[in-house]
Amino acid sequence: MAEIFICSESYKNNLDTIAQHIKSKEKIGVVLKDNAYGHGLLEIASLAHQYGIKSVFVKNEFEARKISYLFQHITVLYGGISDNSLPNIHPTIHSESQLDLIPENTSIELKVNIGMNRNGINSNHLEEFIQKILNKKLKLFGVFAHNGYSDDKNSSFEDHQKIFQQIKEEVKLLAKKKGFQTPRFHSLNSSGTLRSDIIDDDLVRIGIASYGYLSTDFEIPNAKNLKPVASLYADKICTHFLKKGSRIGYSGITELQEDSYVSTYDIGYGDGLFRFNGKQKKFFTADGFLLLPKTSMDCFSALSTQERICVFKDARKLAEVFHTIPYEILTNLSSFIKRTIV
Amino acid sequence: MAEIFICSESYKNNLDTIAQHIKSKEKIGVVLKDNAYGHGLLEIASLAHQYGIKSVFVKNEFEARKISYLFQHITVLYGGISDNSLPNIHPTIHSESQLDLIPENTSIELKVNIGMNRNGINSNHLEEFIQKILNKKLKLFGVFAHNGYSDDKNSSFEDHQKIFQQIKEEVKLLAKKKGFQTPRFHSLNSSGTLRSDIIDDDLVRIGIASYGYLSTDFEIPNAKNLKPVASLYADKICTHFLKKGSRIGYSGITELQEDSYVSTYDIGYGDGLFRFNGKQKKFFTADGFLLLPKTSMDCFSALSTQERICVFKDARKLAEVFHTIPYEILTNLSSFIKRTIV
Repeated sequence: MAEIFICSESYKNNLDTIAQHIKSKEKIGVVLKDNAYGHGLLEIASLAHQYGIKSVFVKNEFEARKISYLFQHITVLYGGISDNSLPNIHPTIHSESQLDLIPENTSIELKVNIGMNRNGINSNHLEEFIQKILNKKLKLFGVFAHNGYSDDKNSSFEDHQKIFQQIKEEVKLLAKKKGFQTPRFHSLNSSGTLRSDIIDDDLVRIGIASYGYLSTDFEIPNAKNLKPVASLYADKICTHFLKKGSRIGYSGITELQEDSYVSTYDIGYGDGLFRFNGKQKKFFTADGFLLLPKTSMDCFSALSTQERICVFKDARKLAEVFHTIPYEILTNLSSFIKRTIV
Repeated sequence: MAEIFICSESYKNNLDTIAQHIKSKEKIGVVLKDNAYGHGLLEIASLAHQYGIKSVFVKNEFEARKISYLFQHITVLYGGISDNSLPNIHPTIHSESQLDLIPENTSIELKVNIGMNRNGINSNHLEEFIQKILNKKLKLFGVFAHNGYSDDKNSSFEDHQKIFQQIKEEVKLLAKKKGFQTPRFHSLNSSGTLRSDIIDDDLVRIGIASYGYLSTDFEIPNAKNLKPVASLYADKICTHFLKKGSRIGYSGITELQEDSYVSTYDIGYGDGLFRFNGKQKKFFTADGFLLLPKTSMDCFSALSTQERICVFKDARKLAEVFHTIPYEILTNLSSFIKRTIV
C-alpha cells in the first residue's frame, strides 16, 4: 500500500538550518497544523520533541490533545477549546465574541492584524481589548501576528513588521500599567525568519521550512540548505503487456506509442494525489517513470514494472504541474496513508 | 468549525432513482471507498444499511473493518487482507502474485480487464487463472470488470460490455466443468447503469450517482433526478471593516474596490478545499458571497459578515473553477471535518 517516508535526518537538518540562522534553538516554535502539513502529526511531533522543541502550533483542539503530552506550549490557532482543556493548550483569540467562550484562567494567545486583513484583532483597539481579556480573568500568554508579505521581495514585509514592533511596545507599556506579565511575542514564519538578520521576537514559527521548502519570489541563501522531508511511494497492483496503440484508463486518453509494459500503482486522487486528466504537462515519477493519465481515484498507470514506485521526493515538481505551491501538494495527502519515519 | 451536512433524503432519492431505473433494489451495490467519496464512511454506510443495501465496495481492509457489522458482502478493491479477516470481507484479485498472500478458504472477487488496461487480469488466461484460484482453495465469490468508457457517448462502452458478456459465458461454463458455484457478476458503475436499458448482471456498483452526480459527456435523462448529498459549511473567525483599496491575504492579491466588511471563515486548502490563488475565475459561495483570494491553509476571506457560510451545495461549481470533476472536489475534503447527517 502507498506509504509516506518521513526523513528524520532532513527534518533535523531543516531545524538546524533555522537554529544556525537565528543563533538559537530555544527560539524555534514549529507549526504542526493540518496533520503537520500532511506529514503526519504524531510522526513530526515525535521528531520535534526529540529535537528539543518546546512550543508548537496546531490547527485546533483535536490536534492539540493528540500531542499535549509532548510539549510545554501548544497554541491552537483556530476554534475554541473545551471546558476541561489542559493548561499547556493555548487558544488563539481573533475576536471579542470568542472571549465569552473561553473558560476563566485559560492562558491565551492574542492574534493581531498587522495588515494582512485576514485574522486577528485590529491594533487600534488594543488597550480596550486587553482590558476585556483581563476582565474575563484570562491570562495573556502571547501576542502574535502573521506577516502576509514574507514571500515577497517588496518592502511590505518590513512595513508590516514595523506595525508589530509598535504593538509590542504598546503591550509592554500596558503590562507595566495594568500589572500583568509581559506576554511572549512572535510574528515571523519560515521565510520571515530566514530573510531577517536580527530576530527581536521571543519565538519564530517555523512551518514550511521545517518540511524542506520555501516559496519566496526571491532567493534566500539559507533556503538552499533545506531538504524535503516527505517522499511518497506507491505499490504495484498489476502489470499488463500492451501493444502499440492500446488505450489506457478512463476514456482511453493515453494511447501507447509502442509495445509496452504498463503497471498500475495504488495511489490516486482519493488519496490526495492531484488528478492528472491528460491536460497537464508530462510527469515523471522521482525514479523516472512516465505517469499515464487519466489517473483514477485509487490508482495511476505508469510505464514501469517496478514493484514499488517513488511518486515524489520533492513536492515542487507536482506543485509546478498543478500550478500551486508545495504546501497544497503536501497537506492534500490523505491522513489514511501510512507514514513511516526513516 | 467547518462542517459537512449529509442529506439523508437526497441519498435515498439517488438510490431510489437507480432502483426505479433497474427495477430492483436488491441489485444495488454501493461504493463507499475513499471515505465514501469524502462524505464520511460511517455516515454513508449507516444510510446505505438503512436503505437495505447488502453489498458494498471499499478501498481497503481498513475501511472494510470499520463497517463490517453492517453489510452482508464487503468487497475490498485494493490491497490484501489480514489472516484474521472476516468472512464477509472479499478481497479483489488483480494478479497472480496476490494469490499467495490470501488465506485459504477466503471468498474472493476476481477483477478482469475488459479494455481499460488498468487493473485486473486479462481474459485470455481466464481458465488457467481460475484453476489457480481453485488450487489455492479460495472461493470465487465474484467476477467483475470496470468499464472505463461509461461516461463517453461513443460505442466503446458497448464494445467493452460485449467482452464482459463473453467472460461471463466462459466463467459459467468453467463453473459447470470444474464444479464450483457460479460467482456473481458485475460490471456497471453509475453512468454504465443509467445508460443501460437492461441490466443483465447480478449487481450494479453505484458510486458517484449515489452522492448526486454523474460526469457523462452526454445527457442521461434519469441523471436529472440525482441530488447532491454533501454541503460544506464554514464558521466565521472574525470580521474587519476595511477601506477601499485595502489589501487582503498573502501578497495582498485582493484589493477592495470599495469600503467593505470582510470576514474570514475556518476552512482552507489544508482541509481539502482547493486553493484559490487569484488566477481562477470568481467564485461565489452557495449563499452568494464573493470569495477573496488567496485562500490560506486554514481559512478564506469573503465579502460577508454571516456567522456561518455555505461554501457549496453542489460540487460541480468548484469542479468547474478548478478544471476537474466533482469526484475530486468531494474526495479531497479532509476526513477531519465533522460530518452531520441531516
